[in-house]
Amino acid sequence: MSTPDRYILTITCPDATGLVAAVSGFLRDQSCFIDESNQYGDPSTNRFFMRAVFTRIAQSPPIDKIKADFAAIAKTFGMSWEVTSWHHKPRVVVAVSNFGHCLNDLLHRWHTGQMAVDIAAVVSNHDTMRSLVEWHGIAYHHLPATPTTKPAQERQVLDVFDAVGGELLVLARYMQVLSAEACDRLQGRCINIHHSFLPSFKGARPYQQAFERGVKIIGATAHYVTPNLDEGPIIEQAVERVDHTHTVADMVSIGRDLENVVLARAVRYHAQRRVLLNGSKSVVFK
Amino acid sequence: MSTPDRYILTITCPDATGLVAAVSGFLRDQSCFIDESNQYGDPSTNRFFMRAVFTRIAQSPPIDKIKADFAAIAKTFGMSWEVTSWHHKPRVVVAVSNFGHCLNDLLHRWHTGQMAVDIAAVVSNHDTMRSLVEWHGIAYHHLPATPTTKPAQERQVLDVFDAVGGELLVLARYMQVLSAEACDRLQGRCINIHHSFLPSFKGARPYQQAFERGVKIIGATAHYVTPNLDEGPIIEQAVERVDHTHTVADMVSIGRDLENVVLARAVRYHAQRRVLLNGSKSVVFK
Amino acid sequence: MSTPDRYILTITCPDATGLVAAVSGFLRDQSCFIDESNQYGDPSTNRFFMRAVFTRIAQSPPIDKIKADFAAIAKTFGMSWEVTSWHHKPRVVVAVSNFGHCLNDLLHRWHTGQMAVDIAAVVSNHDTMRSLVEWHGIAYHHLPATPTTKPAQERQVLDVFDAVGGELLVLARYMQVLSAEACDRLQGRCINIHHSFLPSFKGARPYQQAFERGVKIIGATAHYVTPNLDEGPIIEQAVERVDHTHTVADMVSIGRDLENVVLARAVRYHAQRRVLLNGSKSVVFK
Amino acid sequence: MSTPDRYILTITCPDATGLVAAVSGFLRDQSCFIDESNQYGDPSTNRFFMRAVFTRIAQSPPIDKIKADFAAIAKTFGMSWEVTSWHHKPRVVVAVSNFGHCLNDLLHRWHTGQMAVDIAAVVSNHDTMRSLVEWHGIAYHHLPATPTTKPAQERQVLDVFDAVGGELLVLARYMQVLSAEACDRLQGRCINIHHSFLPSFKGARPYQQAFERGVKIIGATAHYVTPNLDEGPIIEQAVERVDHTHTVADMVSIGRDLENVVLARAVRYHAQRRVLLNGSKSVVFK
Repeated sequence: MSTPDRYILTITCPDATGLVAAVSGFLRDQSCFIDESNQYGDPSTNRFFMRAVFTRIAQSPPIDKIKADFAAIAKTFGMSWEVTSWHHKPRVVVAVSNFGHCLNDLLHRWHTGQMAVDIAAVVSNHDTMRSLVEWHGIAYHHLPATPTTKPAQERQVLDVFDAVGGELLVLARYMQVLSAEACDRLQGRCINIHHSFLPSFKGARPYQQAFERGVKIIGATAHYVTPNLDEGPIIEQAVERVDHTHTVADMVSIGRDLENVVLARAVRYHAQRRVLLNGSKSVVFK
Repeated sequence: MSTPDRYILTITCPDATGLVAAVSGFLRDQSCFIDESNQYGDPSTNRFFMRAVFTRIAQSPPIDKIKADFAAIAKTFGMSWEVTSWHHKPRVVVAVSNFGHCLNDLLHRWHTGQMAVDIAAVVSNHDTMRSLVEWHGIAYHHLPATPTTKPAQERQVLDVFDAVGGELLVLARYMQVLSAEACDRLQGRCINIHHSFLPSFKGARPYQQAFERGVKIIGATAHYVTPNLDEGPIIEQAVERVDHTHTVADMVSIGRDLENVVLARAVRYHAQRRVLLNGSKSVVFK
Repeated sequence: MSTPDRYILTITCPDATGLVAAVSGFLRDQSCFIDESNQYGDPSTNRFFMRAVFTRIAQSPPIDKIKADFAAIAKTFGMSWEVTSWHHKPRVVVAVSNFGHCLNDLLHRWHTGQMAVDIAAVVSNHDTMRSLVEWHGIAYHHLPATPTTKPAQERQVLDVFDAVGGELLVLARYMQVLSAEACDRLQGRCINIHHSFLPSFKGARPYQQAFERGVKIIGATAHYVTPNLDEGPIIEQAVERVDHTHTVADMVSIGRDLENVVLARAVRYHAQRRVLLNGSKSVVFK
Repeated sequence: MSTPDRYILTITCPDATGLVAAVSGFLRDQSCFIDESNQYGDPSTNRFFMRAVFTRIAQSPPIDKIKADFAAIAKTFGMSWEVTSWHHKPRVVVAVSNFGHCLNDLLHRWHTGQMAVDIAAVVSNHDTMRSLVEWHGIAYHHLPATPTTKPAQERQVLDVFDAVGGELLVLARYMQVLSAEACDRLQGRCINIHHSFLPSFKGARPYQQAFERGVKIIGATAHYVTPNLDEGPIIEQAVERVDHTHTVADMVSIGRDLENVVLARAVRYHAQRRVLLNGSKSVVFK
């Protein structure tokens, strides 16, 4: 049995009558089967969002012809749209510093075929994770950063990203803040894991902040990076209970498990094109 | 500004190419706007499920004409389908025994306009809840049950249900098991709250069972009633942590809050036609 | 069988060697049985916290003698301490505005014997909840507040609190901010429910704020009131998932269930003397 | 600054007046500081459980003298008790088959100092995980099992356990059922992770069972192994929401994260002597 010839279509546009009919009617006319489809009209912005997974069959036109013909419909409705192969694994570069739990988690998922991405390289301002990364057969770039070399180091990170054809940069507890220029360049293509339940406890040492405030629940947040620190569109969050007996170190330990799961989900949602940007927010078709 | 003329269309049928296109194309041709739409094809049964909320505008045909014309499409695809007014509030009868928390919760939601149902009557094998129910201006039917009168009492319950034009029977901690005949007659129209995380701890005294097993999490389950006790299609579940210090009474107390929330959600999902039956399981379009 | 003669002892003091031994040895010497005991030494402040539930038996001295003798030990260790009857139900005044879900929930728990408090009165700046409250046989004080009458209205609230011998003021969605003087006077005796996962979204319209930020989880927080708005010691929090399809109204609706449960737990913990203040934080012995 | 000379005392015995006083008074008389202490009297069995962490100072007697003197008190109250060094890391053998996520998770925690155990060896009926384990510098024993060699293979597993001085056997998705003899021999020293929310879905293919039942929440359970399959004392459980769109494969994937976290917590609780057996249940002092 051959692999199905399957694609993901994502659409963002102004909301209008007949949008779903136009898209689904078009796919039917190409003899394509819709495996999965989600749409959402945001009443507060009148924007429409859609993600459809469809399969070409023998009678369907070639995918390039399908794309070319869809462009006409897309123009009518003012759509931003994309068709990607279901089988495409985005090229990912992971940036890490000295905390390796998220990196290890991503590598294990990738290694065991649970994460449909292609981890192309790991960059780090430290050399700590080299052995782990190289055991997985992945290139490790140690790019030290000092206050004076920071801008040059960031260029090196972006050079690695470009050189491997990077499609997604994952900041897996990377303790360097990207410049506004880098954030803009990587808009919607750079995911950070922040170790708090945003918008609580932005910035440095969030578990220390959580401890001092005496919260009864802590969390982690995966979001797209924007020039405003820790304010980008949230993709996923998760939380866990704590109480008065938990020290900052206990929260750090509990938080690690949250960070792993939240970041892995966000990367998976992104890789499967389930996340569409809606201004400063996100639409996530789970 | 006038109330929008809005409807809910629900569909179940064998999966096929062109289903979404047929439905959404039809609605577009009636100048109807799709406010919300969800669909799901179950790969394990090849059944297709859809729920669409649409709004008629001035140019649209009358709703009866829309329904009549849709019947032709429905026939082609072998659909079971229904069109209901978005504004229709299902007539609900609540059955209760001596634990009134779920009843009080439902009444409060209804009273404050948070639950779009029309509570038409409350039936009970006890007289305990009369005052509460009558304060809300709802008819209370005390229908005592003894082992010998049980079949007759069940007929009385069903008579009340019929007399008020009941569309949904909610067993809100009603401690009488319905006969197989009643279960069949009320298929998909009778929701029970079971005070355990099913399929664990079916039958009587589930918190006692949970206590004895030493579980670290307890739960509640809302499900459609079928002749097999506690085995009907699950609509919603929720859980809460417990530990060794919790007595059975503590679990009962924690469980009350779970039961309230789980039952209220299930009734709301049902009332908004978000629940479609899929054999012994349910599709819930949240 | 007679009711056990049971007491709750709570202690806060500087941490020291021999504290538990002194307390438990003292209770043993009075022939008292310790039913439940929790203690916690905070390494970040070197403060010690303890709550012990004990039962007097026939051989035990009278409780007044026990208290008098314990005072000597308490002095040695610099303890703040209290002995309360296990059977004592704190006198509670509930303040409410136009959202009655928390009030209804507290009344139902009280009415059905699930909440060991004595609800002595309800005060409100609106008359909306009168019928519900009076059905429960509780005095309802409608104390309207305008910008000019606000200080006088607050005095009226406090007068009601004093007149009924109030021990705890519960702000159950009361939309008036208390003055700093009132907050100070009621320190550790006034619990507020805030409809966000603090410290996120302090102040007005937290669900609107949550919606705009695009968070994936919303929450509710019960805390003691202090002069700094929404910054008092947190007693309990709970959260629920949301996604892009949830409107502000949906969040308000989901939030209601969180608010009910979180506030009820906080009141129960307080009534059972499970909450001890630790600077700007709380120790909660569950 | 030297490492504190710290110990963990665990006690199980019939409940009685004066127990806490006897233990805490004894520790005070040895000039030991109680860092942490939890106790619980089970009213349904009249058994008492205690765990205290204490620190010896310069004035304290040697630990062997402390233990010898405590034996007298222990005898009076009929205690089962143990004093262990806080710094002792239990010797752990991990058994695994072809699913390596729990193993990888445990190894990463151990490798980065987050799990205070000493992983002495990994045994497996497959050779799949050798490379991962040996990269961590741990001995890997490939012990194939066939229906006929199964008893001999189990002896080999136990021989490895004995040879390395094993104190805890962790079944980290080990797909071989231990014999009743092995279960008895390892009572309270063998932890299994079961991939369901027990007691639901015992035995084989729990995610398949969960899928077929249509549950809305799935879970994982860590428990001590007993001769009755999946019925041993539960140590920890966790759950995650699913819906109708989740396939068995999706549940397997979601379940992996639950299994990792639940097993890691159970091993940590056990290693820190936080788990005391209470018949077929457990007391877990978190």
